Amino acid sequence: MPLIVQKYGGTSVGNPTSIKNVASRVAKHRAQGDQIVVVVSAMSGVTDNLIKLAKEIMPLPSERELDMLLATGEQTAIALTAIALHSLDVKAVSLTGAQAGILTDGVHTKARIQNITPKQIHALLDDGNVVIVAGFQGQTPEGQITTLGRGGSDLTAIALTAALKADLCQIYTDVDGVYTADPRIVPGARKLGEISYDEMLELASLGAKVMQSRSVEFAKKFGVVFEVRSSLNDNPGTIVKEETQHMEDVVIRGVSLDKNQAKVTLVAVPDKPGVAAKIFQALGDAAINVDMIVQNVSHGAGTPATDISFTVDKPELPKASKVIESIRADTGYREVIADEKIGKLSIVGVGMKSHSGVAGKMFETLAREGINIGMISTSEIKISVVIDLAKGEQAMKAVHAAFLG
Amino acid sequence: MPLIVQKYGGTSVGNPTSIKNVASRVAKHRAQGDQIVVVVSAMSGVTDNLIKLAKEIMPLPSERELDMLLATGEQTAIALTAIALHSLDVKAVSLTGAQAGILTDGVHTKARIQNITPKQIHALLDDGNVVIVAGFQGQTPEGQITTLGRGGSDLTAIALTAALKADLCQIYTDVDGVYTADPRIVPGARKLGEISYDEMLELASLGAKVMQSRSVEFAKKFGVVFEVRSSLNDNPGTIVKEETQHMEDVVIRGVSLDKNQAKVTLVAVPDKPGVAAKIFQALGDAAINVDMIVQNVSHGAGTPATDISFTVDKPELPKASKVIESIRADTGYREVIADEKIGKLSIVGVGMKSHSGVAGKMFETLAREGINIGMISTSEIKISVVIDLAKGEQAMKAVHAAFLG
Repeated sequence: MPLIVQKYGGTSVGNPTSIKNVASRVAKHRAQGDQIVVVVSAMSGVTDNLIKLAKEIMPLPSERELDMLLATGEQTAIALTAIALHSLDVKAVSLTGAQAGILTDGVHTKARIQNITPKQIHALLDDGNVVIVAGFQGQTPEGQITTLGRGGSDLTAIALTAALKADLCQIYTDVDGVYTADPRIVPGARKLGEISYDEMLELASLGAKVMQSRSVEFAKKFGVVFEVRSSLNDNPGTIVKEETQHMEDVVIRGVSLDKNQAKVTLVAVPDKPGVAAKIFQALGDAAINVDMIVQNVSHGAGTPATDISFTVDKPELPKASKVIESIRADTGYREVIADEKIGKLSIVGVGMKSHSGVAGKMFETLAREGINIGMISTSEIKISVVIDLAKGEQAMKAVHAAFLG
Repeated sequence: MPLIVQKYGGTSVGNPTSIKNVASRVAKHRAQGDQIVVVVSAMSGVTDNLIKLAKEIMPLPSERELDMLLATGEQTAIALTAIALHSLDVKAVSLTGAQAGILTDGVHTKARIQNITPKQIHALLDDGNVVIVAGFQGQTPEGQITTLGRGGSDLTAIALTAALKADLCQIYTDVDGVYTADPRIVPGARKLGEISYDEMLELASLGAKVMQSRSVEFAKKFGVVFEVRSSLNDNPGTIVKEETQHMEDVVIRGVSLDKNQAKVTLVAVPDKPGVAAKIFQALGDAAINVDMIVQNVSHGAGTPATDISFTVDKPELPKASKVIESIRADTGYREVIADEKIGKLSIVGVGMKSHSGVAGKMFETLAREGINIGMISTSEIKISVVIDLAKGEQAMKAVHAAFLG
């Protein structure tokens, strides 16, 4: 009997009607004889509302208590999903992350899965149940409730697929699959039939919104093939898997725009060994993920000094600013400039590494549009630039037209 | 160092502002050097909203999944309360019922506390924390989330007071204490300085709204003295404790009106041994609490038949009706009449048992008001009558004036 893990995001379980739709879809699979584990996110808007409530009480709430708070969102969704399945006469039991055997480390609000003991899930499946697992959450070996950070429900689904040795993992979302660019911004964007982990990884880390990079990394590491597809129709989605030969013919797979980054620049940092390490160790200790890092050449008279810029997720900016403030004396920089009005535009494709001139074409396209480039960073299969947020969509359209139009 | 357990109800933690007020009150006690365990209910309205959501999906949702759902209400409240204490620089940690070591049986939606292992609470208290425990919930030895039913948060507070051997238990609510009658209905009602467990028990079981009877029973059993007081001011409340000598001088302690009962009458039940047992065993098996039971004398020609009436909490009526329907063939009654438009008016007082004429005075008062009595039930320290809901408040005022005016 095939075992399928299906993950439904917040918009798919946004209200009683959509929860019933999810239940119908699950029931249809179940009627075909499949065993099914369903992973659900919190109903859309719930997590944001909880965070807003907490921040009304205290601007920087304790992360341990935030986890206690946010875990209720998914717990609500699993109970309602189980009830919706019961209403269709399908046997179903919901489990919190802790009950499902998902053990994590103790880094609250962005815990990492350490281990999954799916004993309880197997027992319930064997007993003929659809098992509904709360995404995004787990517990430490000491019994503290943790959450996995943004995109945590995808991670739950992929990790469960690996732990359960399931036959299939389906990530249901509100889009049909992975596109060459966000079709809401670029009308000519096309759906991809398949994509490699690495390309998906770059798209994910670039804010393509379909998935967070951690989940894709995890899938790559454990060889979990998964499908990104829509919960609103029966169209085939995009299969994400190991790179295959014919994929390499494609130069550029997609263009993405991340509007969720903020840029921090430390001006006039003394240019001596160990200073950069201090900065990024302090950020790492605070569990803040840094994305791009750019260090410019030294400038100024007297003691050599340099500017160091980096980007973080926008919601992390207050925390990052606090960390940077706390190491001011230790690092000796002159001032900090934070900029939330940036967009990160990226092109991604495994073929890029064997084709020269891709970067040049991208920069030239932006220049023709009169768009200034603030930061550049590249990898083997992607090129990212930081630009003015207001020009983000214009830039995305132009670059998509140049490479994929 | 004195250890205090304080319980705050849903209206006391109804929004961020009131949660901050609770935190200020706790912080003030903490500053006096007390160790404090805070038990909170779900924010007012939250539990009802969750039930509504579930019923939109399915009219009779699974009780196991209801518990999964409802437990999120208190979990949200404890996290926000902890954050509010942090904002006042008070060390605080929240614990779910499970984390607090509250073990229950597996009767979902009305589980009974079996055992409390407050190891974690003691450790956190010793570490200088205010410990905030989710009321109303626990877990089974197998790790299933359970809820304790109506008034469960009071029960949590009183059971924790016993398990922790705390010095004081304060039940904070939106009234100043226990009154001779509901002051919103009877303007002449007076606050009582103290009341015995038994009287409180009768008042509680009669819907005086201050507390559910299970909590008072538990307090009586374990000798937990507690104070019912307001979270809106610093007025002394009402102390609930073992009956003392001078209490007995008082004939009537209070008058209460329960609008939350429904009456079920089985018409023409064959009057033979074992029929009543069948009915109430079936209701018991379904974990439905029956309050008043009245059986009238046999009537009719041919096979002797009788009418049996009982009352249940209004929300239990659909379930009770289903149970009664399921035993129709087995018991042979002719028809069922359900009536939600009833009120149960009661007078309570330990002195009643040594004073004759109390019942007569009550019935006469009602007769003078032209109010018909549907059912009567009495105990040593109370007399209850079921009357038309529409005349409930009129009856309450008249009876209060007659005994306590």
